[in-house]
Amino acid sequence: MRALVYDGQLRLAEGYPRPEPPPGEALVRVKLAGICNTDLEIVRGYMGFQGVLGHEFVGVVEECADESLVGRRVVGEINCYCGECPTCRAGAPTHCPHRTTLGIWGRDGAFADYLILPMANLHTVPQALNDEAAVFVEPLAAALEILEQVQVKPTMRVVVLGDGKLGLLVAQVLGLTGCDLVVGGHHEEKLAILRQRGIDARLADELPPEKADVVVDCTGHPGGFTAARGMVKPRGTLVLKSTFHGDVEVNLSMLVVDEITLVGSRCGPFAPALRLLEDGLVDVESLISATYPLDEGLTAFEQAQKKGTLKVLLKIQ
Amino acid sequence: MRALVYDGQLRLAEGYPRPEPPPGEALVRVKLAGICNTDLEIVRGYMGFQGVLGHEFVGVVEECADESLVGRRVVGEINCYCGECPTCRAGAPTHCPHRTTLGIWGRDGAFADYLILPMANLHTVPQALNDEAAVFVEPLAAALEILEQVQVKPTMRVVVLGDGKLGLLVAQVLGLTGCDLVVGGHHEEKLAILRQRGIDARLADELPPEKADVVVDCTGHPGGFTAARGMVKPRGTLVLKSTFHGDVEVNLSMLVVDEITLVGSRCGPFAPALRLLEDGLVDVESLISATYPLDEGLTAFEQAQKKGTLKVLLKIQ
Repeated sequence: MRALVYDGQLRLAEGYPRPEPPPGEALVRVKLAGICNTDLEIVRGYMGFQGVLGHEFVGVVEECADESLVGRRVVGEINCYCGECPTCRAGAPTHCPHRTTLGIWGRDGAFADYLILPMANLHTVPQALNDEAAVFVEPLAAALEILEQVQVKPTMRVVVLGDGKLGLLVAQVLGLTGCDLVVGGHHEEKLAILRQRGIDARLADELPPEKADVVVDCTGHPGGFTAARGMVKPRGTLVLKSTFHGDVEVNLSMLVVDEITLVGSRCGPFAPALRLLEDGLVDVESLISATYPLDEGLTAFEQAQKKGTLKVLLKIQ
Repeated sequence: MRALVYDGQLRLAEGYPRPEPPPGEALVRVKLAGICNTDLEIVRGYMGFQGVLGHEFVGVVEECADESLVGRRVVGEINCYCGECPTCRAGAPTHCPHRTTLGIWGRDGAFADYLILPMANLHTVPQALNDEAAVFVEPLAAALEILEQVQVKPTMRVVVLGDGKLGLLVAQVLGLTGCDLVVGGHHEEKLAILRQRGIDARLADELPPEKADVVVDCTGHPGGFTAARGMVKPRGTLVLKSTFHGDVEVNLSMLVVDEITLVGSRCGPFAPALRLLEDGLVDVESLISATYPLDEGLTAFEQAQKKGTLKVLLKIQ
């Protein structure tokens, strides 16, 4: 099969072996996949991953033990867990120390004709949702994870920093709480997507000076942390959604003095993401910058890395 | 009056002007005061403070508008706030941006014959508590602040790192929750104080490998953060109680991947600290390493800076 592989360099493999689903797993024919910042970071060395990239997808189940799933259109949670260790039994399977993660850690990903995932990870997609919306379920779930972790009250002042793909999803999700939200970014055309939905979105240097109860760093770079930190009220919460290669110098004493809470936030729940998309409460299709066939995967990656680009999709079947 | 002053160097001033209480404030004759790690950090440049040091004290009210307070033995909350700004009105006066802090920021401290504090900051000390216990109310309140911020459940595994003054108070307070607590330190004689109270206290390199739901860093130095971070379970909480001069390199991406919560924690509530001491639920007197008269304040500071020393007190009147 065809696969977009990273093994020190990114390349399109033509005769990559088609995966064989072990017991409990399903073979999925991939229809559409999305390039995430994490994919771009992996190509820069993040996680040290080698293999087929990609973890945002929608596809059709081709083979699996549960016949009711065969032929169904699905999206899939990306963390594959053992289900038996203390972490899994404590209800945190996405943190299973034995986990593999689709296209990120120990498991080939979605930029290929086929992928395999445990049946338990799959969610069927309602007919009303087209592929272009369904492919956003995984990053939208990651945005919703913030609300699993932090109680964002309707009376709170909230700042989202970053107008990239994740920032625009996070802003839309937090806007649904009724909170006093302002988004800071660097691209007028991206901020305009939020303004069209009634969200106060401004160039970062035009943000009001008033500090916020909750600040979410979706900038994807180390400098974003410092900027976000400066916007949090004493006793406020700074949510970290960015992953990148390398360390950041942090003044921990000032976190103590201001009693700031930092919350790292990663993968989130798929079911509510599907509900929000089905109810039309989040707009994802205006986030699509371009769609390329898998055969033009290298060009797609080049496009995705360009400043100002939002979501680049790979049309696979 | 006499005062232990830091103005680039530490010195005992003999003719320091006695403070005059403005409206709303009380003049307190200091009886006994405690040297805190923050005092030692200030002498190394932390906060850039200059003036009379000291913020842990017990004293007697000599002058104030409320006659019922005159002659009463008191301890005092150290943050003096405006009461009118949005932060104060939001119920976080210890974070008032206009605050002064006794012996730390913009206000002379307790290592002197007299201090002034707003009447609203004073708590009368029950007769059953002697001065040697009452002088620990301020650091014990800081230990209790953790429980104001983080729900420590009885079933949780908790690690306290650091067997200094604050570490021993934090360990005792957290032990009262019934949680599965282990304390890591570097001084057998300090750990023994906790063991006598039934707390599992070990040398840091003999801590069990099992990770914890909550880890509290009371080490007081940058390396403590890295050690503490390595002991937190995914989705666990790392409480920062240490303040020190300088920054620390932090891998923020790994906080995201493991969805760790960092909580900065500073000053806490006095009333529950007084209750715990009155009920004999926390032992503080075994934490006293030495007591010096104020006139020997410089020697007291030298002693307090020696490795292995716990609380050094200054007997003032």
